[in-house]
Amino acid sequence: MKIQEIDTPALLVDLDAMEHNLACMAGFFADKPAKLRPHFKNHRVISLARRQLEAGAIGMTVSTLREAEILVEHGITEILLANEIAGDLKIRHALEISAYSGLILAVDNASVVRDMGRLSRDRGVGLRVLVDVNLGLDRCGVSNPEAAADLARLAAAEGLQVHGVMGYEGHLQVLKPGPEKNERCRDATGLLLACAEAIRDQGIRAPIVSTGGTGTYYLAGNTPGVTEIQAGTYLVSDTAYVEYGALFRRSLTMLATVVSATDGSAVLDCGLKVISAERGLPCLKGIDGVRLKVLHAVHGLVDCSCSPGCLTVGKHVELWVYYSDGTINLHQKMYGVRGENVEEVFTIER
Amino acid sequence: MKIQEIDTPALLVDLDAMEHNLACMAGFFADKPAKLRPHFKNHRVISLARRQLEAGAIGMTVSTLREAEILVEHGITEILLANEIAGDLKIRHALEISAYSGLILAVDNASVVRDMGRLSRDRGVGLRVLVDVNLGLDRCGVSNPEAAADLARLAAAEGLQVHGVMGYEGHLQVLKPGPEKNERCRDATGLLLACAEAIRDQGIRAPIVSTGGTGTYYLAGNTPGVTEIQAGTYLVSDTAYVEYGALFRRSLTMLATVVSATDGSAVLDCGLKVISAERGLPCLKGIDGVRLKVLHAVHGLVDCSCSPGCLTVGKHVELWVYYSDGTINLHQKMYGVRGENVEEVFTIER
Repeated sequence: MKIQEIDTPALLVDLDAMEHNLACMAGFFADKPAKLRPHFKNHRVISLARRQLEAGAIGMTVSTLREAEILVEHGITEILLANEIAGDLKIRHALEISAYSGLILAVDNASVVRDMGRLSRDRGVGLRVLVDVNLGLDRCGVSNPEAAADLARLAAAEGLQVHGVMGYEGHLQVLKPGPEKNERCRDATGLLLACAEAIRDQGIRAPIVSTGGTGTYYLAGNTPGVTEIQAGTYLVSDTAYVEYGALFRRSLTMLATVVSATDGSAVLDCGLKVISAERGLPCLKGIDGVRLKVLHAVHGLVDCSCSPGCLTVGKHVELWVYYSDGTINLHQKMYGVRGENVEEVFTIER
Repeated sequence: MKIQEIDTPALLVDLDAMEHNLACMAGFFADKPAKLRPHFKNHRVISLARRQLEAGAIGMTVSTLREAEILVEHGITEILLANEIAGDLKIRHALEISAYSGLILAVDNASVVRDMGRLSRDRGVGLRVLVDVNLGLDRCGVSNPEAAADLARLAAAEGLQVHGVMGYEGHLQVLKPGPEKNERCRDATGLLLACAEAIRDQGIRAPIVSTGGTGTYYLAGNTPGVTEIQAGTYLVSDTAYVEYGALFRRSLTMLATVVSATDGSAVLDCGLKVISAERGLPCLKGIDGVRLKVLHAVHGLVDCSCSPGCLTVGKHVELWVYYSDGTINLHQKMYGVRGENVEEVFTIER
């Protein structure tokens, strides 16, 4: 199958660029004590997770229990759920998955830890947890080593297996590489390591220190004491991470068709139902000066006044995906392309 | 099943509010020459389309060929695709669907009309079209009666069945009710009717004049000569349309769980992968002063500094959906609730 035969709108991934990213990241971790546990939430494609594991990843990170379940259904069982859960329904679901996997959960709250202890004892299944630490993103996580130690002690008393700490410095992913970023990442990782130390001071082994993303892996991954990095977007990459200064190649594009045009403008058959503009507008690939103005539900409106008539009705165009997480989430499949050929159609799990 | 037993995040539709909206809209059209052809793109739920048809709708409007195909697969065959298509692949797909339905397509471009004529003759299947008119949204459509007449004449010469005109005044949906809106809608509908007239002057019957949305149905639907209204969002409604001044009841909420909290803030397990913030941030239902600050991929960050401690971990909250089109698109199912009971689980087609 050729790209020209794909019905639009369609999500494409350039296999050369993606494989370059896979190899780059694997190369970085090859000689490091820290290892990669890539985030499955970004692509949710089983065969891509397998490629990441074959390239040296020690397991997968997920954002929801459903994602954990999908991995377990496909035989991938070393999983970190890097988000909090709450409520008996969720904890019971986590216990079910834990019975068949090495699922590790993040905790930052004493009442949830008590609920986990109670339900874990009821069910007779152990639960593994990391204490989540707020590294400045101000989303989830305990705020200091004392709180981390208190929560870990409670978890251990409740019979949970405390495997260590995690912290996601999401606010630092977006900083351009340079001295400020280096310093702030060092501080964030320092806090995380201090929390791990405080937990170990309680006589709890806590071997795991998990942090980092596509924008900070090279800093956190080089810090002694850090054992795992959660980067996910690196594999397909997107315009957002290129703007943040990440060195990976963008591989994701949206294939669209011009369905209406005047001299100075054109309308594409791709809107916000198939490509995310939540964090920034996609831009056209390989057409200088022509600019996507706005996305409606199923239309993309393009200004081509700088090059009147360049987008004729029926023409195929590609747009660089700005935000890969939000865009892949809108699709059921993704076409793996090399040059003009479609080599593979990836199923995006839900 | 009770709401409290639903795993979060989950999309809920309040059946009382939705049925109120269904009845209101049906009541409006009961004694009008104009009829409703509601937009399926908003909910993509077959049983809701059936309810709309039972309440008097004369068919469905869709935004993509895939949506048309879904309807035909479920025996709903009176369909208007209110968007342009282009390219042989799409036209062949439209021909397949047309062989089993009364599909009507929108056209605004001579080269597509010629392609449709050629492929229609090849296949021996007729194609029905409306000439799309630009009513000021500046997206698709021809711009004046002369251009409409030219395109209709070409379409007829190509053997297509010209059923009339359509035009979507999307830019006027968002205006608050009042004299300015009335006047601008009158102008827009006037242009559309003039285009219909110009086509009829060519000896083409062109019975259909289709326009309007949830924000303008009461103006366009009361205009002599207008035969169909495309409103879709009215059924479930959303915060955006309430802000535009529409009189329908919001019925859509996102059920979420508090997964992390401090005194002044809380984190919900719903982010932009399950609720759209493309056009505005959702707000919490029934909790005054507490404000959603931002959506991350799978988290919603809430400021509850005005009422410290009100959102404890494990608590369920509901958020009013701001943009229903973009939000329903993120889900596979929607829970139909009445009071605390789940009465029905709707499948959202893809």
